Amino acid sequence: MDIRFYNGRVLSMNGDLEVRPGEVWVQGNRIAYVGPEAGETEKKPSAWDREIDLKGNLIMPGFANAHTHSAMTFLRSFADDLPLQEWLGQQVFPMEAKLTGEDIYELSRLAVLEYLTSGITSNFDMYFQPEMIARASVDCGFRTVMVSSLNNFTSSLEEMEQEYLKYNNYHELICYRLGFHAEYTTSEELLKGVAALAEKYQAPVFTHNSETKREVEECIGRHGMTPTAYLDSLGMFQYGGGGYHCVHMTDEDIRIFRERGLTAVTNPGSNTKLSSGIARISHMLEDGVEIAIGTDGPASNNCLDMFREMFLVTGLAKLREEDAAAVPAQEVLKMAVRGGAHVMGLTDCGCLAPGKLADLIVIDLNQPNMQPVNNVVKNLVYSGSKQNVKLTMVNGKILYEDGKFFVGAEPEEIYENANRIIRRMTEK
Amino acid sequence: MDIRFYNGRVLSMNGDLEVRPGEVWVQGNRIAYVGPEAGETEKKPSAWDREIDLKGNLIMPGFANAHTHSAMTFLRSFADDLPLQEWLGQQVFPMEAKLTGEDIYELSRLAVLEYLTSGITSNFDMYFQPEMIARASVDCGFRTVMVSSLNNFTSSLEEMEQEYLKYNNYHELICYRLGFHAEYTTSEELLKGVAALAEKYQAPVFTHNSETKREVEECIGRHGMTPTAYLDSLGMFQYGGGGYHCVHMTDEDIRIFRERGLTAVTNPGSNTKLSSGIARISHMLEDGVEIAIGTDGPASNNCLDMFREMFLVTGLAKLREEDAAAVPAQEVLKMAVRGGAHVMGLTDCGCLAPGKLADLIVIDLNQPNMQPVNNVVKNLVYSGSKQNVKLTMVNGKILYEDGKFFVGAEPEEIYENANRIIRRMTEK
Repeated sequence: MDIRFYNGRVLSMNGDLEVRPGEVWVQGNRIAYVGPEAGETEKKPSAWDREIDLKGNLIMPGFANAHTHSAMTFLRSFADDLPLQEWLGQQVFPMEAKLTGEDIYELSRLAVLEYLTSGITSNFDMYFQPEMIARASVDCGFRTVMVSSLNNFTSSLEEMEQEYLKYNNYHELICYRLGFHAEYTTSEELLKGVAALAEKYQAPVFTHNSETKREVEECIGRHGMTPTAYLDSLGMFQYGGGGYHCVHMTDEDIRIFRERGLTAVTNPGSNTKLSSGIARISHMLEDGVEIAIGTDGPASNNCLDMFREMFLVTGLAKLREEDAAAVPAQEVLKMAVRGGAHVMGLTDCGCLAPGKLADLIVIDLNQPNMQPVNNVVKNLVYSGSKQNVKLTMVNGKILYEDGKFFVGAEPEEIYENANRIIRRMTEK
Repeated sequence: MDIRFYNGRVLSMNGDLEVRPGEVWVQGNRIAYVGPEAGETEKKPSAWDREIDLKGNLIMPGFANAHTHSAMTFLRSFADDLPLQEWLGQQVFPMEAKLTGEDIYELSRLAVLEYLTSGITSNFDMYFQPEMIARASVDCGFRTVMVSSLNNFTSSLEEMEQEYLKYNNYHELICYRLGFHAEYTTSEELLKGVAALAEKYQAPVFTHNSETKREVEECIGRHGMTPTAYLDSLGMFQYGGGGYHCVHMTDEDIRIFRERGLTAVTNPGSNTKLSSGIARISHMLEDGVEIAIGTDGPASNNCLDMFREMFLVTGLAKLREEDAAAVPAQEVLKMAVRGGAHVMGLTDCGCLAPGKLADLIVIDLNQPNMQPVNNVVKNLVYSGSKQNVKLTMVNGKILYEDGKFFVGAEPEEIYENANRIIRRMTEK
């Protein structure tokens, strides 16, 4: 499909964050043109499969959800109001043990639907059964970067290596990154094995890092070092990577992140709901650490909404620093789009420019929460909402438009399956 | 219009928070029936003006926005990233000085549109020119409780008294409450005058209270007491009332609130964005203080979205108390619906029951963020979004349905006027 979007406001995020009137052309799965209205164009209008009048609405790159556990949709509103360790041990792990591969396929599709409603065009997904995640994503037409959740109880180094080789040559919508669940669930022997694989493939490594105070304290107890310093001492980050959460970071941790080029993926919704704490976003930003934003899984957040996360990133930083000027809107938007694409290794995503992948969204500005149009970027971060997402395109295909999904299955079927799965698990 | 909603899930909030299958009948501006599917009903289907198949979606009372400054829509994303006092002094007050009455009418209508998209069916509005606010609200069909913003610079006791008498006998959609801007903007003489009026009319009084640390410290410096204790010492709350924000409350303040039956109206979005702090919601709740939720104005928040506020009420409490169990979802929902109706004196709102006013909303559960349906109340608070608001009815009239507004004017006209107003103000 070749699609022309015209009569829009374009926030290309290619270099600056200026919003300019203009149009965007999509040919196949790539962007062919971004710029002012083309008068006499080389491609005549009649040759387009579709021309979309944006009516002054905003077209911009999609959001990258840089940390999630998609298939956990089944536990949404199932167990809440519990601290992280109890929540994991008493509620999450016993239920996850009952999941089949087919369940993971269905529950991942449900998450994809939700991503689309929030203008999210790619996700960095840590969960079991990569085959089921990859199939769900490809069937929907969605872009997923998978990451291993290797730990002492599931998977192995051999499996991870096989998956690394398989899923980086699987489908254009799928990638796979080396990773492990967390320091506190993974033996030193395994961690050294991960570091060796990272060395072998010159690959970045990703893991949960410093999510809770307890995690950091226990790691110091075991190794005399914070998780970041300990993992770094094992040679884990020779080729970069990143940490999910990064709430309880020391100055030394931040220094290691900057020097290794690691990205801190912040998950403020989850950290809030599980009372894990407020990340030091201002400090990391000032110190030049790359930052991306993730929703975390739907069981801890409980929604998969980049607008809520964006407001929380800046709002919580303002509260933490007692400074209303902390982490301004422009910085947050860069994290949600470019930071995410960067950490996921999606070098062809994160901005609208010729040759880049057509992962883009249309934001309805003709809604009361976006009026008056004093500042589009601030509107997005401070008052934007899922309700403003008019269209979500991944890899050149429109997967969501005006509330309707085009993912190869009816949403009602996906909802029904999700309800059936949780009912089955909770019976007797 | 007599309207029958059937085939729904009903969250009446009349007593408990159970969700039951059933239907709701609206006759004129009141609710006529709430209960299970009526087989042989006294009113035959053919007599309805409209029958709405809810298709399993949720019908519930609308949210009450218990503190706002509606007409400040013009300053959305205009001045951000500033602490409260600078923001007020350098940005807000100079721009407000340029507002005409007609501007306030237009800008209030813009806010009403946004309330409707978030399932808000009434607002507690503190702003200038009550005639323009009331007209905007009545013209849209929206329910507004106005409160005086009396202070040393605008309005007078005589005006407030006249307005009190006029707007409590103006239109069924309009009420008016005694109030003043804040302790720090109002002289003791004026405050004593307000207390005398409260005594004369046996009326509750409302004001901004303990929003910032500085406000409390300065009040202690002036009077040797916190704002709550000082105002109470003037006999302000003999007939109840409440405080907006209530962030920096002492145990003694909380005791006064409980004993006087005052409501604390929390505004977490605004308190976050202006880095004012996190209110002691857990403590107030445990001590039996009534709590309601407000968005505050669109210049400080910057959106008018009860879903965002609900998540923040519980999320920030969890962070503040370092307790993931703090302020569970059910409590938050009660604040957003019943607490708001209570503080605004809307005794016929806040639940679905025969004889009550038909201020209600339909929530689309057939959306990914509401699936699976493990717990409707938790879904509303933890993953709900404006996007789920399918229908908003105020006083028996549908004002918003499936993204369309029925407020006697085209939204585009209202948006255009808002943009024109801010352009005019910023020219030269």
